[in-house]
Amino acid sequence: MVDQQYFQMAVNAARQGADTWTNPQVGAVLVKHDQVLAVGYHHQYGERHAEVDALSKLPEIGQAKGATMYVTLEPCSHYGKTPPCAKRLVEVGISRVIIGQLDPNPKVSGRGVAILEQNGISVTVLESTGGLNQAYNYFYRNGRPWITMKYAMSLDGKINGVSGQRTQLTHSIAQADVQQLRQHQQAILVGERTLTVDDPQLTVRSRQMVFPPIRIAVVHDVNQLSTALHLFDQEAPTWLFSEVANQKVVPKTVKVIVQPKWTPAKIVAYLAEQGIQSLLVEGGSRIQAAFIAAELVDELIVYLSPQVLGGQGLPAAVGLPLTDQMAFATPTITALGQDVRLRARRL
Amino acid sequence: MVDQQYFQMAVNAARQGADTWTNPQVGAVLVKHDQVLAVGYHHQYGERHAEVDALSKLPEIGQAKGATMYVTLEPCSHYGKTPPCAKRLVEVGISRVIIGQLDPNPKVSGRGVAILEQNGISVTVLESTGGLNQAYNYFYRNGRPWITMKYAMSLDGKINGVSGQRTQLTHSIAQADVQQLRQHQQAILVGERTLTVDDPQLTVRSRQMVFPPIRIAVVHDVNQLSTALHLFDQEAPTWLFSEVANQKVVPKTVKVIVQPKWTPAKIVAYLAEQGIQSLLVEGGSRIQAAFIAAELVDELIVYLSPQVLGGQGLPAAVGLPLTDQMAFATPTITALGQDVRLRARRL
Repeated sequence: MVDQQYFQMAVNAARQGADTWTNPQVGAVLVKHDQVLAVGYHHQYGERHAEVDALSKLPEIGQAKGATMYVTLEPCSHYGKTPPCAKRLVEVGISRVIIGQLDPNPKVSGRGVAILEQNGISVTVLESTGGLNQAYNYFYRNGRPWITMKYAMSLDGKINGVSGQRTQLTHSIAQADVQQLRQHQQAILVGERTLTVDDPQLTVRSRQMVFPPIRIAVVHDVNQLSTALHLFDQEAPTWLFSEVANQKVVPKTVKVIVQPKWTPAKIVAYLAEQGIQSLLVEGGSRIQAAFIAAELVDELIVYLSPQVLGGQGLPAAVGLPLTDQMAFATPTITALGQDVRLRARRL
Repeated sequence: MVDQQYFQMAVNAARQGADTWTNPQVGAVLVKHDQVLAVGYHHQYGERHAEVDALSKLPEIGQAKGATMYVTLEPCSHYGKTPPCAKRLVEVGISRVIIGQLDPNPKVSGRGVAILEQNGISVTVLESTGGLNQAYNYFYRNGRPWITMKYAMSLDGKINGVSGQRTQLTHSIAQADVQQLRQHQQAILVGERTLTVDDPQLTVRSRQMVFPPIRIAVVHDVNQLSTALHLFDQEAPTWLFSEVANQKVVPKTVKVIVQPKWTPAKIVAYLAEQGIQSLLVEGGSRIQAAFIAAELVDELIVYLSPQVLGGQGLPAAVGLPLTDQMAFATPTITALGQDVRLRARRL
């Protein structure tokens, strides 16, 4: 097999990693004399890295001597929750390392490669992400999370029937798709009206997650909220962005962050500081309009439901003007039962 | 070949008929000893019918004796612009007639078959439209035109950026598709604001049409309209539905119809009286909302443009409440360059 095929095997292994949380998904394949000796991946945040996972599969560590390691991301060079992988590869006598991409984190990028090369290991960088770690890469290159906005819309462009009432527009297959979407997010945000009118759970119900997305609501005064709302149910970490300081006792899963005036830019800056790499904005119209006006939308996911609501229902974004329209790439279209999903990245 | 294959040949012939206007598209295939002797179709409103067209292709009319005629619609029984086809089939000695569907017009349905059978011709009715003449069939079965509503919409559910300004949302391929759509309509309608703000041509520019769709605008006072508007350009017949009687001289292509208060129901009733079988509602938000509230929409065609407009732009239907949502079948989705077309029939 050629390098590209072993690399693809490593990419496929990487995708098995669930709950890697803010760590990247990484896969590794160990090859000697054109034979795969071991395959590994980063299983979960805090657990061993892909390279070490692959080495752990060897019946005899001595087999690694002279082998080639294919790894989707540059081996780490620092002592974190685990010792540096680059040093371990040197120790076990790997002779060649084929890397998909350098680590995008500017503080560590290139250091893993330097350790390997200083120790006489031949290194090739394929300059390919293999489609992995979009949010991780975006975060380190742009200093803020990748922001996806998602909403359901009727054929007449409305996200609800009557303002101030919840309207369930989509059907079961589209609803299951939203669960899938949430699984890959580190934070999910709603505005105050969506919080109080819909009382959403904002949890992933399709899979038990070790690191569920942080549930975020942006409100004016946290003290006005009923603690009967789902966000107080301790099912997932919850951050409440309030403009008024909190006076009440909240569960330990709930953190209140106070700013005199929250804007999308301030929210996103705070999330970036906290290392949050991906954010899903889930409504409603007003907070969506605020994120759109701030041009803080990287990808749009629209579920179209085949119905017409008429009346005074709200369109997907309302109120704030845009200086210019935001253009998106041609959407990817997927039929989901009766509904249709459009997915488009900002141009 | 079997009946079904000759019938399909007749359906394909029927589709070649352009400008049949309020006449149905009809195709005919003449067969003897399992050999196709002739194929014909109704070319244009006022010209000969499909059966007579097929017979005219025979080098020698005597060949029709003992032949089988496949025809997509019941042969006519009345003297209109042409003599009755059923009589002509008897005259030339056709021995068997295979008909796709009976004429849906209750005044004539079954009479063509009766003439044939009374004259000893064997008749089979396949009970299949072959997908032809949707509007024609709908009109005679329901006593009103088939109504299609079409609009372009942004990904945030808006049909324009700033209310009162024209916004060109779609790109060239979707625009060409609209031209195709108009070709198959007998009337195209817009509301007053769309008329005065957009000044649309409402013409078919993709093909020279002998019977172009009638351009309709619904206005409060026809006297307030500038005659510089495209609708006064004599490019197509134009009907202005006004609530105030006309005082001004208009071109002979323009007809003004006055009612103290026009509603979708009254508009549709008037079109039905005039024998109009298909109507395309092309905007804007208010007239669309009125047709939706009146539940006078049979099919929806939505062009989705991959952009976000934000601001205070109008959704596709605004203002009038619906007693209940209108449900549509799962849309047929077609990518048209950068844009996406959704087409859905009302359930």
